[in-house]
This record gives sequence, C-alpha cells and structure tokens, in this order.
Amino acid sequence: MSALDAIMGTAKAGVLHGIGVGPGDASMMTLRAAGLIRAVDTLAYFAKAGNKSNARQVAAPLIEAGRREMPLYYPVTTELPVADPGYKQQIRAFYAEAAAAIAERLRAGESVGLLAEGDPFFYGSFMHMWRRLAADFPVEVVPGVTGFSGCSARAGAPLTWGDDVLTVLPGTLDEATLLRRLAETDASVIMKIGRNMAKARRAITAANLIDRAIYVERGSMPGERIAPLAEVMDDFAPYFSMILIPGQGRRL
Amino acid sequence: MSALDAIMGTAKAGVLHGIGVGPGDASMMTLRAAGLIRAVDTLAYFAKAGNKSNARQVAAPLIEAGRREMPLYYPVTTELPVADPGYKQQIRAFYAEAAAAIAERLRAGESVGLLAEGDPFFYGSFMHMWRRLAADFPVEVVPGVTGFSGCSARAGAPLTWGDDVLTVLPGTLDEATLLRRLAETDASVIMKIGRNMAKARRAITAANLIDRAIYVERGSMPGERIAPLAEVMDDFAPYFSMILIPGQGRRL
Repeated sequence: MSALDAIMGTAKAGVLHGIGVGPGDASMMTLRAAGLIRAVDTLAYFAKAGNKSNARQVAAPLIEAGRREMPLYYPVTTELPVADPGYKQQIRAFYAEAAAAIAERLRAGESVGLLAEGDPFFYGSFMHMWRRLAADFPVEVVPGVTGFSGCSARAGAPLTWGDDVLTVLPGTLDEATLLRRLAETDASVIMKIGRNMAKARRAITAANLIDRAIYVERGSMPGERIAPLAEVMDDFAPYFSMILIPGQGRRL
Repeated sequence: MSALDAIMGTAKAGVLHGIGVGPGDASMMTLRAAGLIRAVDTLAYFAKAGNKSNARQVAAPLIEAGRREMPLYYPVTTELPVADPGYKQQIRAFYAEAAAAIAERLRAGESVGLLAEGDPFFYGSFMHMWRRLAADFPVEVVPGVTGFSGCSARAGAPLTWGDDVLTVLPGTLDEATLLRRLAETDASVIMKIGRNMAKARRAITAANLIDRAIYVERGSMPGERIAPLAEVMDDFAPYFSMILIPGQGRRL
C-alpha cells in the first residue's frame, strides 16, 4: 500500500485544504481527499443548523473516531430568499465568523481541511472561505468529481459528445431565461432545482427537450432515484438532485 | 487500511469498467479508479500510434509490473480533419476492432478496465466503446475529476459562483459562434484549443473577456503552465490545455 500512501500524501502545517468529496459515494472521493481527511489536524464542514453535514456524510467512512472536527452551522439556508437583505446580512456575518475560527487554527500552525460537496471551485461554499482566507494563508484546493459527472455515470448517460456545447444552468434562473438557454445549447445540466422543479419542467417542455431529460436524485447515494423527467411529477426536489439533458453530438 | 480497501472495492468478472483517471495528477484519481486499476484482469487504454497513452501515464504510479495491458492505438488523430470521410472511415473501423477485442475478453469472463482522461462521460473516447458494448455487457462507469476542475484548482480560480451560468465550449467552434456564446454566459471553459488558440483568443478579446481569461497547460502535471491568456502568444496549444473564464457571480 505504500505507493498509495505516497500518492495520498500528508497535510501541511498552517495550510487550509479545500477538500472536494465528490458527488456522494465515498469511492468517488479522490486519493488526495482521502489522504487529507485522515491527515489534517482539524476537519471542518458546513451544515444546515440542526442537520448533519452532507459533505461529512460522504466522507464519514474515512473519518476515524476521536477526530477533531469543526462543524460550521449556517444560521439560515433556504428559509429566506437570497436577495433578502436579512439573508445577506446573516450569511455574511456567519462566513466572517467561520473564516475567523479557521484562521485561528491556521495561525496556531494547524492544518485545516474544509470539506466541500462535489468540487470546491464549482458553486462551492468553500469559495466563500477561500475569498476571505487565501490572501493571508496558504491554500490547497483538492478538486472533486462534480455532481453532474457522478449523476451521468450513475444514469448511464454520456453527457457530451464531439463538439457539443454544454451549459450548466442554476434552476434559480427565471423561466424565460431557462427556456432560451436550453434551446440554444447541445447538452445541459440544471442544478439547484429544489423549489424550481415545476418551472424547470415547463422550460424543458417548451424547449422540446422533455424526452431527453433525466432526473437524478441523490445520485450514487442511498435513496438514489433516476428516472426520465417526463415521469417525475414532483414540484419539489431535495438538495442532492439535478436534471441532465445529454448531448447528441458526433458518434464515431 | 481496510476501510480504504473496502471503499476501493474489487473488479467484477465479465464487466467493462470505464475508469476516469482525472485531470493528470495521480492523487486526483478517485478511490474507485485506484481500486480498479489494481484489480481488473486487463487494463486497456487508447493512445496515439507511436506515443504513450495519456491516461496510462496518469495511472502509471498505480500500475504494478507485469500487469496485463491492452493498448489501443488510434490509426489517426489530428492528421485529418474530423469532417474528412477518410477520418470517419478509419476511426470507425478502429473503434469496431477495439470494441471486438474488449468484447472477447469480457466474453471470456475477464474484467476489463478502460482508462479515460478526466471523466469518461465528458467528451471521452470511452463513450465510443460504451456505445458499442453497453447493450451486450455490464458496464460500470467510474466518474472522474474533469480537466476543468483540475485546472481551476491549480490556477486558484473559482469557476462558478452563486447563480453563474457556465458554458463549456469546444475550441473547434467557428469564431462567430465562440464570440456569441462567450458574450452571453457568465463563466466559460474552452476545451480542445490545440490549433484553435489564435481563433479563441480573437473571440475572447472581441467579447471583452481577455482580462479575465486564464490559460492552463498540463494542469496538475509535470510541465504545468498557468498564465493570464493576455500574456500567452502561442498559436498552438498542446493536448492538455484549456482556457478558463471564471464567473463573477454572487459573493456572500
């Protein structure tokens, strides 16, 4: 196992490691992520107050008992709209506090690993810590498998072929924008569908793409659900869910 | 190490495993990929004739001596344009032969691992085997870290924030199309830049994005080069290269 240990590597004193844990199944974590989860002095992660951390649950099989952990609990998640000034104020105060808590450990010479679902630099909350800390502390970003790669693998649906253009769309966009962007691309991923399911389904239907759309909920995790979107009548989707519209580019 | 071994898992008789090896650094391979590279009966990979396989080079630190390997050599890669009927004919005959060779091993009850750079279902040549074999044989697709995640991590450049729309563009698109798509999205990745560097730079400049564009060559690999695109005057880029234009969405 020594070749593997060498590849997985060690943590470094005073370094913030942003650790992508991938789409959900522990086996989809990278070797570097696994090495750091076992090696860092402090393992930090975000969680909704009163809930378990999604990222920690992915990494759980590798977290040994007695590990020093630093849960960072959001004061608010989806209770308030993002545009609400109250949301911004609370979330910014929380991020400032979280960054200060991490900075304290780094200044004490500890290595800190901050877990991130999927890839840390792809819509990741890690970026809000990176923005506050990267000027003052060394940071290592460990890329992860994105949710869409995990979901397309699990769905048996190749996402992009040949010269396909792929568009990644937040489901939070308004319906007309979703429709326009869906109509002009070859392949799509719609993320953050949550309360936006009905709107996304209408836009996809209007773009004549409903027959190609695949709904993936909790891809690669317990409770996984994969179905043609046309058969999914839900108006709400849980946190780990997305819609894939695979491309139809060059088949050689 | 037994928790790790359990997560890495084993190969299955008669199964084709499409193994994403990630962006280049061996530590960015997933645990499942590493487990399969050591466990499959036959390790297959594509390569340009007369060259080493890129995917095999990524996986090399985990490939033990005496491994049964199946190199699959392309008869042609960039010598002919993709639209050339001669290219299509040669490449299709090659893919048919490669699929037949893999099928023979699978029928004999072997497990076969086919390495793929990045993620197998994201512009991967693995898809051409999947298309020919998935109806007749069980297939496991092991998602990988995409090149763009590896490159954005190495560049220290978060790719998408908040409600950013991300567009992944093949550099093979014509200049007007590149310009139009760059102008209407929040964040972009331009892949397959090779001979398309000068064209891509012109489109990015015309879209007023040259100051945000980052060039990454051999991200996470030996010979890595990361620079503002504005400072890169090359008209040709090697195989492992891409341009990132990070989004500027919501900073909380």
